[in-house]
Amino acid sequence: MTGLSMSTPTIDLAALQTRVDTELHTFLVAKTRGAEDRSLPPDVPAALRDFLAAGGKRLRPLLCVLGWHAAGGQGDDAAVIRTAAALEMFHAFCLIHDDIMDNSATRRGRPTVHRSIATRHGHDQLGTSAAILIGDMALAWSDELLHSAGHPAHRLAALRRVIDAMRQEAIYGQYLDLMTPLGPLTDQEAALQVVRFKTAKYTVQRPLHCGATLADAAVDLHTALSRYALPLGEAFQLRDDLLGVYGCPDDTGKPVLDDLREGKHTVLLALAAQRADTAQRNLLNELVGNQDLDDDGAALIRIVLDTTGAHARVEDMITTRHAQALTALDTVPYPPSAAAALRHIAARAVERTS
Amino acid sequence: MTGLSMSTPTIDLAALQTRVDTELHTFLVAKTRGAEDRSLPPDVPAALRDFLAAGGKRLRPLLCVLGWHAAGGQGDDAAVIRTAAALEMFHAFCLIHDDIMDNSATRRGRPTVHRSIATRHGHDQLGTSAAILIGDMALAWSDELLHSAGHPAHRLAALRRVIDAMRQEAIYGQYLDLMTPLGPLTDQEAALQVVRFKTAKYTVQRPLHCGATLADAAVDLHTALSRYALPLGEAFQLRDDLLGVYGCPDDTGKPVLDDLREGKHTVLLALAAQRADTAQRNLLNELVGNQDLDDDGAALIRIVLDTTGAHARVEDMITTRHAQALTALDTVPYPPSAAAALRHIAARAVERTS
Repeated sequence: MTGLSMSTPTIDLAALQTRVDTELHTFLVAKTRGAEDRSLPPDVPAALRDFLAAGGKRLRPLLCVLGWHAAGGQGDDAAVIRTAAALEMFHAFCLIHDDIMDNSATRRGRPTVHRSIATRHGHDQLGTSAAILIGDMALAWSDELLHSAGHPAHRLAALRRVIDAMRQEAIYGQYLDLMTPLGPLTDQEAALQVVRFKTAKYTVQRPLHCGATLADAAVDLHTALSRYALPLGEAFQLRDDLLGVYGCPDDTGKPVLDDLREGKHTVLLALAAQRADTAQRNLLNELVGNQDLDDDGAALIRIVLDTTGAHARVEDMITTRHAQALTALDTVPYPPSAAAALRHIAARAVERTS
Repeated sequence: MTGLSMSTPTIDLAALQTRVDTELHTFLVAKTRGAEDRSLPPDVPAALRDFLAAGGKRLRPLLCVLGWHAAGGQGDDAAVIRTAAALEMFHAFCLIHDDIMDNSATRRGRPTVHRSIATRHGHDQLGTSAAILIGDMALAWSDELLHSAGHPAHRLAALRRVIDAMRQEAIYGQYLDLMTPLGPLTDQEAALQVVRFKTAKYTVQRPLHCGATLADAAVDLHTALSRYALPLGEAFQLRDDLLGVYGCPDDTGKPVLDDLREGKHTVLLALAAQRADTAQRNLLNELVGNQDLDDDGAALIRIVLDTTGAHARVEDMITTRHAQALTALDTVPYPPSAAAALRHIAARAVERTS
């Protein structure tokens, strides 16, 4: 491994992303035409096209394709790309429902699906209801993408087991996330459990496993990929939590106050609450989850996160986990191009600003 | 066909229903144990157990099993029962999300899932968010039931095509239903389109097709079953619309004012609006969809439905469609026990009071 091979992965991630996006676009254009043919409203596929076109890191589809490469997948990758597209469609379902639950007004710099429909019809409840259904349809269509990918039966059966596990973990992760504010802010273990389910497993581990399954990988390889995926997924979410408080809205596409107003119990906040003195803890309890939080309040929270050392501690946790993920890559003779791309993804996940 | 065989189907529907319920219960008990083993909240499987235990007609699972019998299915029916259970789990997803969208407080005589959680935690938004996720999990778990049923690969692939079509139709039907109040109350065609997607296809046709697929039925048999299913499904929904206005809450398990307050545009209301004089139409426009509608207002609406002849016309439509469904049964040499059971189901669907 030379420095050169690490910085120039021979797997072209941008080209993969374009192919996944084209797959999604083509599928939804066909769905629009199918709706028109049956006098059904084109709003549902149109809303999903707009949502997907607005951006996103496409991390899950890329990891799916890399899981296939890591497991020695070669040759025709059309079914792999389509499976990757199915994962992104599933993710659209997650995000559209999450935005309703979090009452978020913007995502990727645009109005969220429920807000956009609510504004168009001047009716909040209609926006929420339509977005629930558009999310449900994204979930149903992610399966259609998967089942029409042309997988041989044994592989589809194995893939469905991974997908079924992934979906359960994603929904449990979201449920845990929803419920954390009912517990104490100091509960770091509860916050870490959310991270594990919602991000480590759902975002990183399972997409890799999906791809590996498509190359008929043995159990050992799944286990090896998990040793990379789980610490990296934790690092990814810890970075996300920091960006939610310290990020630049122009980069993240969402107002910086959203996360703090929601009051989700992150590892960052748990560490701060544990280390806070009485005055600091009162301040956190008063301001975190407060719908009227303003920039001045957020600045006060940031001071507590900094002075308690919670901010620095989370940066340390990210560094440690990033290193664990990289070490895990070195213990398996992955194809060098796959290993290089996984290193590149790891760097992007922990160093990003959006 | 003697009168005796018509009134005593040899397929024991009550016993089938019990087996489906046992399958669902066993699955959810295992999910509860699995959650506990992983320190996950048992609330999600518990909420689904409570929801399913509260009742329901189990029409879709029964039709699935009858589709299998109609197509000549014989012998071990364990995988058929599990598929039937998957359809009921999918239906739980639909109802839990529908109740959020309709803002319904009760279902089957009990608080709806979102209201029950909102009350427990004194937090409306939390109730809605948790119920969105519990519905999502029901959808994910309905697939798990399906994929773990032990179907041979060719059959599972065919079944997935039916299920994927069914889910798209159910979600489109619900979306159309949501949007009808934005159009004119007189639009009978829009109301009928909702009926076709939401009930005729989703509730009757696709469950029968699922069962027939499990007996490797040819396309002709699917077509023949559709000739029974589609008119019966329409009759079923038209009866539902009447029960929503004229039904007894003790039987239906929901307040009689709910449907009228929601303001969904049914065929019944469209017919009344078309035939109404100006005063009657003003009354309908004022009261249908009015959140403050009371019993006196509902009584006024009923008078309009009666005097315009809309009520009687819908009864006629139910009778005609019921007859069409029965005629369709006579054109195919179904196994007599299956035909008898399908006749019995048809009678129950159109003559019911709940």
